[in-house]
Amino acid sequence: MPLSSDGAVLDAAFHPDAVAVVGVPRGQKAGRLFLEALLDPGFKGRLYAVNPNAAEILGVPCYPSVEALPETVDFAVVVVPSESAIEVVRSCANRGVKVAALFTAGFSERGDDQGLDRERELLAAARSGGLRLIGPNCMGVYCPEAGLAMFPGMPAESGGLGFISQSGSLCSLVVRAAADRGLRFSKVVSVGNQSDLQLADYLEYLGDDPATEVIGGYVEGVRDGRRFASVLASVARKKPVVLWKSGRTASGARAARSHTGSLAGPYAVWQGLLRQTGAIGVRNQDELIDTLVALSLLRRPLGPGVAMVTGPGGPAVSASDACEEAGLVLAQLDPDTERRLREHMAAAGTSVRNPIDVGLVPGGAAQAYQTVAAIAGRDPAVDALLVVGGSREGSKAFFGMLSQLSKDLGKPVLLSWLSGQPEPMATRALAAAGIAAFAGPERALQAYARAWDYSTFRTEVEQVSR
Amino acid sequence: MPLSSDGAVLDAAFHPDAVAVVGVPRGQKAGRLFLEALLDPGFKGRLYAVNPNAAEILGVPCYPSVEALPETVDFAVVVVPSESAIEVVRSCANRGVKVAALFTAGFSERGDDQGLDRERELLAAARSGGLRLIGPNCMGVYCPEAGLAMFPGMPAESGGLGFISQSGSLCSLVVRAAADRGLRFSKVVSVGNQSDLQLADYLEYLGDDPATEVIGGYVEGVRDGRRFASVLASVARKKPVVLWKSGRTASGARAARSHTGSLAGPYAVWQGLLRQTGAIGVRNQDELIDTLVALSLLRRPLGPGVAMVTGPGGPAVSASDACEEAGLVLAQLDPDTERRLREHMAAAGTSVRNPIDVGLVPGGAAQAYQTVAAIAGRDPAVDALLVVGGSREGSKAFFGMLSQLSKDLGKPVLLSWLSGQPEPMATRALAAAGIAAFAGPERALQAYARAWDYSTFRTEVEQVSR
Repeated sequence: MPLSSDGAVLDAAFHPDAVAVVGVPRGQKAGRLFLEALLDPGFKGRLYAVNPNAAEILGVPCYPSVEALPETVDFAVVVVPSESAIEVVRSCANRGVKVAALFTAGFSERGDDQGLDRERELLAAARSGGLRLIGPNCMGVYCPEAGLAMFPGMPAESGGLGFISQSGSLCSLVVRAAADRGLRFSKVVSVGNQSDLQLADYLEYLGDDPATEVIGGYVEGVRDGRRFASVLASVARKKPVVLWKSGRTASGARAARSHTGSLAGPYAVWQGLLRQTGAIGVRNQDELIDTLVALSLLRRPLGPGVAMVTGPGGPAVSASDACEEAGLVLAQLDPDTERRLREHMAAAGTSVRNPIDVGLVPGGAAQAYQTVAAIAGRDPAVDALLVVGGSREGSKAFFGMLSQLSKDLGKPVLLSWLSGQPEPMATRALAAAGIAAFAGPERALQAYARAWDYSTFRTEVEQVSR
Repeated sequence: MPLSSDGAVLDAAFHPDAVAVVGVPRGQKAGRLFLEALLDPGFKGRLYAVNPNAAEILGVPCYPSVEALPETVDFAVVVVPSESAIEVVRSCANRGVKVAALFTAGFSERGDDQGLDRERELLAAARSGGLRLIGPNCMGVYCPEAGLAMFPGMPAESGGLGFISQSGSLCSLVVRAAADRGLRFSKVVSVGNQSDLQLADYLEYLGDDPATEVIGGYVEGVRDGRRFASVLASVARKKPVVLWKSGRTASGARAARSHTGSLAGPYAVWQGLLRQTGAIGVRNQDELIDTLVALSLLRRPLGPGVAMVTGPGGPAVSASDACEEAGLVLAQLDPDTERRLREHMAAAGTSVRNPIDVGLVPGGAAQAYQTVAAIAGRDPAVDALLVVGGSREGSKAFFGMLSQLSKDLGKPVLLSWLSGQPEPMATRALAAAGIAAFAGPERALQAYARAWDYSTFRTEVEQVSR
């Protein structure tokens, strides 16, 4: 059952006026996290807890049942034990709740007939009153603008990233890793077993959501392949969609089945789907985050010609390989550019040919890099600049130089940390200046290549649409 | 000219009684770093500087020329400008110095006839007096046992890793990144243009060095391919040799030529060489360090059957793919093991099938993981245990549990950080307990697979040798 085209159901989940957390335990159990998550940073609407044995939990007023709530909430977060889930969902449906997210597990992911039967019964209970379900076996939603979170401690700031995940814990891991790279989220949803609302529903919603500029996803298996393909094709024409697919191998597919009851399907079919729709495929969390960083932060337009400015020679050689292996071009600099570079660089232990090697510069590295990067960045063959440098401890002069450079050139600027360990504080400051920082030149170039591929796809789409 | 088989020349470089740094500038220039590097952590022998315009620099007695030194040093570090290098090398040769490392550049890496001619002249000057050369265009040697370093601030502690590099700056980057992972070095050498001593010479030396257990290398191009292949084959039979080859593509090969004057050769030939010799190939710094971590830290014997213990389900599915893609086996647990696991795990939101998913465990994660990992680790199908967990902030209980587990099981234990960002302090503590920690399950399994491949190669070698 596809969503109504106005997305009102998911509006109710992401921007509810009132929320009830049903089945909050009094003690330190997993279910309590969901109430804590709504208190930090703090849901902006009216919040209720349901537990027959308490008057309040964590300062939130508590009611014995869904029926006893003082108003009809838009959104229910259900954390009751498995055996009472169907009954609670029926109460929510009867009461007129619009949408419920079920943390409760013990359904189709069990892989037995009983689990499948119970999931069917759950869905029937919801449909009896027009209630829509997120999950079961999921972590719900994160929408910082509304103050909704899945876990305590998720960032309170909003951004342009949407994320859809078949793993609840990955929502937390991805949000945290992305935050360290300076990215913030519009909306995140953990889809669980997709008994009712499907990947395609969430994708369509984020595709239409003006607050979402880039979409990421973690996918184990798709339930309605045809609809998913059609929604993906339509959304990917509007904004970049980066999908991390697991369950690629027989071992992964078996694990996916017992994790979310998903049928992974042959990986070749998935790869064909990506090619046909223009969605961007990645294979692990690092690739996902790197690609989201490149798509979210870099100045436009992108282009294939890369100039690299490095101090150390080894990483320059290795990065040259990575450039070509990623399908990019190590820009051939104009002889005039090389001549001008030569005026500012030592004669020995350096190279004015791209990759430009400024050599060993003790102290004053910012100045040396700045002069050289500014000259190289203006060469007409250079579409993007990759700077390999910067120490883990950070250097205000170096980062300030990069920010200014990016502004002056109006071209995308990437940084690969020499230490291989991005430093979150510095990375976030750079991100704010539109500079995408990566833990190595290979990762920077691979992510940039994906962003560049997508931008050529978009250009083709626009040409055809004209 | 191969080294004499006793390796006396490189003994003179790694364990000299007296060292002279020739051409130390008085001011803050690059060359001064080499003297600073010998003062921190501190060369244990007699140290001299050569500079005609100073009586002492940084407290080190200074002499106007090599001839004027009060004794014949074993090892000279030459940091003079390009134009005086040949004359200084001739003086060292005349004075009976055994080996010199030349930071000075401006030779074959220039790529012109003049550069090639000057490198030939340099070599002739050395040979006139039996002096052997490291470089030119190199950073020299690091041997913490002797107190020799290339850069100030390199670790003072010794370990079992040897490293040979055609990039000087990579020596610093690799030593630092490896130290963050708990690895320490026996000897490191930056080989530069290899005008005299070749990759094969250093490799042979480290192969015979009892302090070196595992060898890493960064290679742009090999000068004497036949000899290199034969030395590599012989060393790889004795200890693992992990080689990061750059210059794989046309762009990389061009960059290698201007970096160290290296001819990269076709990459397919290199891949054939790895297969024939049993050396381990990697493609970037992360793969290099990960593989060195696996080879250096893990408890033996290794085997292909992996059990994974995770909390979050998404990473478990993805890691299952990585396991199979790396050529390993997701161990099929005995029904009895699964039955015993079930006794200790929640019924819903968990999985007793490998990958074992302990589910969401708020607080007390160490206890939950420990019980489960101990049961799984004892299953006869399990050769190695991969634990996916641990927060960035670290948890003493969690790390203590892992250390104890590894001891009790006597099987290799790997950790993949959930946060994706290894925390150096905790990583080093785990390394000391023989636990190899990685920034993601894919990286852990790929490194483990390489270590396992090498151990099967070694078993074959031993069977043939019997």
